[in-house]
Amino acid sequence: MFESAELGHKIDKETYRKAVPELRSALLDAQYELKEQGKIPVIVLVSGQDGAGKGETINILYEWMDPRFISTLAFSAPTDEEQQRPVMWRYWRALPPKGRIGIFAGSWYSGPIHDRIDGIMTKSAVDARIDQINRFEQMLVNEGALILKFWFHLTKDGQRRRLKALEKDPRTAWRVNKWNWDRLKTYDKLQDVVGHVLRMTNTPWAPWIIIEGEDDRYRSLTTGNILLDAIKQRLAGTEKQTTPVAPPVPVNLDGRDVLSELDLTLKIAKKEYENQLAKWQGRISELVRDPRFKAKSLICVFEGSDAAGKGGAVRRITAALDARDYQIVPIAAPTEEERAQPYMWRFWRHVPRMGRVTIFDRSWYGRVLVERVEGFCAEADWLRAYSEINDFEHELADAGAVVVKFWLQIGKDEQLKRFKEREKIEFKRFKITEEDWRNREKWDAYHNAICDMVDRTSTGNAPWTLVEANDKNYARVKILRTVCERLEAALAGADDKSKKKQGT
Amino acid sequence: MFESAELGHKIDKETYRKAVPELRSALLDAQYELKEQGKIPVIVLVSGQDGAGKGETINILYEWMDPRFISTLAFSAPTDEEQQRPVMWRYWRALPPKGRIGIFAGSWYSGPIHDRIDGIMTKSAVDARIDQINRFEQMLVNEGALILKFWFHLTKDGQRRRLKALEKDPRTAWRVNKWNWDRLKTYDKLQDVVGHVLRMTNTPWAPWIIIEGEDDRYRSLTTGNILLDAIKQRLAGTEKQTTPVAPPVPVNLDGRDVLSELDLTLKIAKKEYENQLAKWQGRISELVRDPRFKAKSLICVFEGSDAAGKGGAVRRITAALDARDYQIVPIAAPTEEERAQPYMWRFWRHVPRMGRVTIFDRSWYGRVLVERVEGFCAEADWLRAYSEINDFEHELADAGAVVVKFWLQIGKDEQLKRFKEREKIEFKRFKITEEDWRNREKWDAYHNAICDMVDRTSTGNAPWTLVEANDKNYARVKILRTVCERLEAALAGADDKSKKKQGT
Repeated sequence: MFESAELGHKIDKETYRKAVPELRSALLDAQYELKEQGKIPVIVLVSGQDGAGKGETINILYEWMDPRFISTLAFSAPTDEEQQRPVMWRYWRALPPKGRIGIFAGSWYSGPIHDRIDGIMTKSAVDARIDQINRFEQMLVNEGALILKFWFHLTKDGQRRRLKALEKDPRTAWRVNKWNWDRLKTYDKLQDVVGHVLRMTNTPWAPWIIIEGEDDRYRSLTTGNILLDAIKQRLAGTEKQTTPVAPPVPVNLDGRDVLSELDLTLKIAKKEYENQLAKWQGRISELVRDPRFKAKSLICVFEGSDAAGKGGAVRRITAALDARDYQIVPIAAPTEEERAQPYMWRFWRHVPRMGRVTIFDRSWYGRVLVERVEGFCAEADWLRAYSEINDFEHELADAGAVVVKFWLQIGKDEQLKRFKEREKIEFKRFKITEEDWRNREKWDAYHNAICDMVDRTSTGNAPWTLVEANDKNYARVKILRTVCERLEAALAGADDKSKKKQGT
Repeated sequence: MFESAELGHKIDKETYRKAVPELRSALLDAQYELKEQGKIPVIVLVSGQDGAGKGETINILYEWMDPRFISTLAFSAPTDEEQQRPVMWRYWRALPPKGRIGIFAGSWYSGPIHDRIDGIMTKSAVDARIDQINRFEQMLVNEGALILKFWFHLTKDGQRRRLKALEKDPRTAWRVNKWNWDRLKTYDKLQDVVGHVLRMTNTPWAPWIIIEGEDDRYRSLTTGNILLDAIKQRLAGTEKQTTPVAPPVPVNLDGRDVLSELDLTLKIAKKEYENQLAKWQGRISELVRDPRFKAKSLICVFEGSDAAGKGGAVRRITAALDARDYQIVPIAAPTEEERAQPYMWRFWRHVPRMGRVTIFDRSWYGRVLVERVEGFCAEADWLRAYSEINDFEHELADAGAVVVKFWLQIGKDEQLKRFKEREKIEFKRFKITEEDWRNREKWDAYHNAICDMVDRTSTGNAPWTLVEANDKNYARVKILRTVCERLEAALAGADDKSKKKQGT
């Protein structure tokens, strides 16, 4: 893997001096075109051995390009806001918008590589993370990003020479500390781990670019040229790059599916409803105040037919909570800043910290529901969304979030009845829009989309709960009970884990 | 101040039951109109004594309104990201956008009140903070916000009764802990401090609303009614509320001003330039690596005539820095999310943490330059901006930021020469737009705006440096030297302070 980067590559002063001006103005032009076009975010990972010229290369890229449209993100120890969320949250919040270049000095690779060397992560944990990273990068590429992953390599002798040279020069001596020299001692171990990680993440959509780091001119010029070519190629390429997807296949030939199996006649009488409501609300309010919940979070997702009663159900949950502990996130059209980011970005930004509750009124499932049915995105986009969504929810669950998802289903007749009732009520809030009527015409298309969604995204960590919602009382009680049960199970699980840690 | 809130106000069950449905639907209507109009952010501060019903009131507001368009912010101990920035940063990031309601459970008042009681803040420090808060709220109101500051009051006996009642009820017992009972012991002290703070912040633009907290129905209904009336009044009021402003007065009758006094013939020869450049860049790079800089930050602001060489000057600074330590923020048109916030919000979001550098390429001075000259905002808006800007920079400096501001001035002939040169160069990056030519026609209007800006915003903490920029070498050296001198002074000051703390 590192063979070509151990040949002692060098560029002489004269060649370098001649090449730079042209490269520089070409880079500037490419950068401006990128900005003007505003479609491609460029993600540049600068990684490699200590002393291999990471910092110098970043600085020279700034010299060559317009620094106003580059941002560099350095990741040291996570802040407490980051610690309380999934591992990848800090990288999501640092993604460059379309048209800009984001340089990552340190990235999602630093954690697993260093933790593996220090023995904090097991090999299988690293492999799981690698899988996650590959999928993350694939998603970014599918969303239009250009990812360039540079690894600056040094041989062991080369690293020793570089560190000595840096130490000797008063302008760079500060860069070298004991920690760097220690790293030299673990050179072989690092190479082992890095070799494995790089090989496993050397994907077709985001391959590694390994560059010999010893000679400054060679390293800078090579990096600059590669960056330029990659940007130019992506600007020239008109077709959208996406992962191949298999079209959905019909499996419900007998007309039976998860929706048609629902018994929409289920009901709860008023008196019983009031008892149940009080019981489950009381239970929820206890659960979120349980000390074990401080290491968990609760994420509720509400999807459902129009007029199925999402709002009312949400209120029955929040009535049991303290307003200071939760946020409701209504999902409408994305803002300008959200449109400049991958689809999932606007949901990542609302991921709650530990001990808190976030309720999504509509959600990331928009892509496989309304966007699919209305044709707002390409088939390839919504087809790949299923696994992107699963990845997202998996990361949430991994970080301690309890993800509870509801689909509220009402019958077509019941919906008509509710639409008509709402039209009669004068309050603006119950206004039925033309869109609601139009959606109704696509009842069957939605039906199929919902069944596919449930099949493909109901996972062990984040199962769907289908709610028979013709009777509002029944629906609300089922929702409250489900939230309680999921929370209870999660807190009991937390208990088991902490017991295990204590060795009991 | 609390007299009317000690009368034992009560609302009987029947009256309450009758009043609520109407209030509720009126609140919902008002909330939807607010949202549809999208111009007014509503900021509701819910504060008061322990046990006075803060949490209950927030919860009931959620019950009465559409919770999807309300957010509640609870502020406990600041996160480390917040600690490393000015005190008010955490509140800025929590402001609701236009059309939404943001409830602050705990607010910018909690800190000074509790720190005063605990003896952490001196009386004069509290008064300084009060002054800052008043100006902050005034700015919010001028920017269109509706601020409602509720204080729920209890007599000492009333508080004891409330705590006992809460403790007795199993559903609310968890709300009461030892800390609450301790607060009862310091009731008089709290009243003293609160009385002072409330009196001093009882401004015409954001007066306090003091409500007796003992009776739930009275408190809820009163709060709801006040909120409703306030929103309705603001929705009905067409005229924009702004602080009265005095128009600018001409004082330069003799034709002399800070710009005309500049000697634009100042030059540095190439050889000397190179020496100076190396010297100051080396110095900057040392200063930002000085351990004392970890408790400081550097904020550079670049403003100047078109083609004055801002970009080149910025590059000469960044060349001395590590790309991982700084961010360049180019200021262009605000995004949708930025337009939904007060003018200064989009600058606050880029305030660096300690130990870091942020360079603004154009800045918050846009309001008193281009927006003033082009008439993009009302006269009242740019006139009040001077003091809002001074407040902002004062807060930055207070938190340890070194704020260095440059105006780069070139002569009218020199600008023409540069425009023509740029037009000849084929690279897109040097494109001269029609806007540049149009701005040139307004040379005199800009001249006046610049002089006013310097007079009104060059402060001890954040002075303007006017840079004679006809000669780029001269300009760059002056800029680098100024940054060094300001940084040196700040680090020396940090030294003095830490010595003082150690009592030497």
